[in-house]
Amino acid sequence: MPISLKITNICGRARAGELQTSRGIIETPAFMPVGTQGTVKAMTPEELHEIGAKIILSNTYHLYLRPGTKIIEQAGGLHSFMHWGRPILTDSGGFQVFSLSPLRKVKEEGVTFRSHIDGSTHFFSPEKAIEVQNILGSDIMMPLDHVVPYPASYEEALEAMKRTVRWAQRSKDYHYRYRQGPKEQALFGIVQGGTYEDLRVQCCRELVDMDFSGYALGGLSVGEPKETMYRLLDKTVHLLPPEKPRYLMGVGSADALVEGVSRGIDLFDCVLPTRIARNGRVMVPGGYLTLRNAEYAQDMRPIDPGCSCYACRNYSRAYIRHLLKANEILGVRLTTYHNLHYLTGLMSGMRRAIKENNFKQFYEEFWAGYNPGQKTS
Amino acid sequence: MPISLKITNICGRARAGELQTSRGIIETPAFMPVGTQGTVKAMTPEELHEIGAKIILSNTYHLYLRPGTKIIEQAGGLHSFMHWGRPILTDSGGFQVFSLSPLRKVKEEGVTFRSHIDGSTHFFSPEKAIEVQNILGSDIMMPLDHVVPYPASYEEALEAMKRTVRWAQRSKDYHYRYRQGPKEQALFGIVQGGTYEDLRVQCCRELVDMDFSGYALGGLSVGEPKETMYRLLDKTVHLLPPEKPRYLMGVGSADALVEGVSRGIDLFDCVLPTRIARNGRVMVPGGYLTLRNAEYAQDMRPIDPGCSCYACRNYSRAYIRHLLKANEILGVRLTTYHNLHYLTGLMSGMRRAIKENNFKQFYEEFWAGYNPGQKTS
Repeated sequence: MPISLKITNICGRARAGELQTSRGIIETPAFMPVGTQGTVKAMTPEELHEIGAKIILSNTYHLYLRPGTKIIEQAGGLHSFMHWGRPILTDSGGFQVFSLSPLRKVKEEGVTFRSHIDGSTHFFSPEKAIEVQNILGSDIMMPLDHVVPYPASYEEALEAMKRTVRWAQRSKDYHYRYRQGPKEQALFGIVQGGTYEDLRVQCCRELVDMDFSGYALGGLSVGEPKETMYRLLDKTVHLLPPEKPRYLMGVGSADALVEGVSRGIDLFDCVLPTRIARNGRVMVPGGYLTLRNAEYAQDMRPIDPGCSCYACRNYSRAYIRHLLKANEILGVRLTTYHNLHYLTGLMSGMRRAIKENNFKQFYEEFWAGYNPGQKTS
Repeated sequence: MPISLKITNICGRARAGELQTSRGIIETPAFMPVGTQGTVKAMTPEELHEIGAKIILSNTYHLYLRPGTKIIEQAGGLHSFMHWGRPILTDSGGFQVFSLSPLRKVKEEGVTFRSHIDGSTHFFSPEKAIEVQNILGSDIMMPLDHVVPYPASYEEALEAMKRTVRWAQRSKDYHYRYRQGPKEQALFGIVQGGTYEDLRVQCCRELVDMDFSGYALGGLSVGEPKETMYRLLDKTVHLLPPEKPRYLMGVGSADALVEGVSRGIDLFDCVLPTRIARNGRVMVPGGYLTLRNAEYAQDMRPIDPGCSCYACRNYSRAYIRHLLKANEILGVRLTTYHNLHYLTGLMSGMRRAIKENNFKQFYEEFWAGYNPGQKTS
């Protein structure tokens, strides 16, 4: 097996562990910064090391379209191309095909779609998505899935879930039979089923029977109320085998990370911390600050006086606001650095609490202090 | 005196020395990266340290307009605001008022101009420019000067030169009498006179009589042929006192730096290395590469195989091209880092050659290898 998870502590439903890979150990639960185009926006790999990121996610859809697999293959794979030696998880492109592409047509064989960059037409099958990820050389791969928007009818969600299951089987077959096999790259299954409990339960059961290296919960955090997502987690996470990693896709707000961990999730990814950073929004205990606001123009405090990150040790809110208003790259570098540092710190705080059998207290204190609608000075 | 120059070696007209300031020693000749808005675009101060930058330039005009002197004063000055503890040279705003402002009106008292940001009206006098730079707290200040465009008539150039001289006297008087005085901040004189030798000679003589801490050659590198600039340097540099630093404003191409040093210049600044970096142009021995070009799409070599900088140690041309095409910030970070590293390396190479009494050979080898019009692989 290319990866294996050792659960070291359990506290309620929350769990702490070590995900072993050939490129190093990832302490879980972990947040994966997103490097959509083969770079975590505004960051170097060394800076990701500094903040404690042990694994990143990159997007098959984007890299397939630009620069293309030929160039990444020539570079010796994505790790070498982007100068990142630690583990990489790649998604399958399914989510992007169904959300970014301006035109798509799904058939059983696969999905034909238009590039959001130049409008060119492409075809992804489950086999093709594996083939591309084999070339990228990621440590954890995702199978092509059929993602429905929120809201979707029961019939739509059912059809897409069933197709996702069939595609998962084809992905696994192809990966095991024709390509480099399961030794080097792990393959997860992705649970779909819209917001319908019975569909998600059925999907879990069918995927678990196929025995993947881990399980992702997909098609969530796409606009549904957070309570709906939490309810669906409550109904499905316990169906997944405890010895395999569980990955909640597209979740990166502090509150949802805490709720996910409390329900036994091990891995998360989201563009949120890097995307809001580019708009000048920073994560602080209790919520967010919008640094472009005039109230910070003369505020000589760091983003978070309790934070030890590079940005908070050396720069004021007033200076970072000036940089953002003047469209200076350093502004976005500092807000991005801080947000990713904040989330890796939040995850390590949760891991510690689980190990100390203190997660309930951590959870209650988090919620007592959380009020994102209110200004947190 | 807030600064003093110790010339350690002379080789032909080229000279190597140490410019002592209260914030550290600057080995000369030196190139000053430009931090227009209180940040060298895309770089952190630590990265500037890494590449060996000992002094940066920042722009009074830009900082006065945004974020304004009040905020920088509250931050305890520009060094503290931007987290840069080494020397800073600030220009007076003269060049920007005469090049960026959409509308301006010059009178003997000063110049009224419109902000290029929001169109608001402002007034700079020589005294005001000193006052703003006192608040910024730079180590070396420039007096407000009257800059004429190229080409300018003899009469225009004469009038602007004479006004520049009168304004220089007022700047000095104001700085010495009413503000914190010459102990903490050095004040240079700026030689103007367009492309007219006799005007520049006259300006040199009048400024030298006033006894500034250093002398800048302004109004050059504004569109005139390089040979014209070199001829004007030949006619004026020897008129400046040898024990004072000489600063050629706005020069940052490798060839002009070599020519400037060969004529006895000690300090240079220019946005060129950082600006072209943002367009994907990188400096290499012999010229430039335009990394956005298709020919680099599959080029797995570093920008310059002979370069030891962070970008060249870790990334290929193909990867950096991908980042630039995908509008990823890391692309601009890497090209900027490389270009500034290239120029600091060029300057240290020239200092070494002067110290080893080898500058003539350095000069000849530089020109033998220089061919910016030709592709340098």
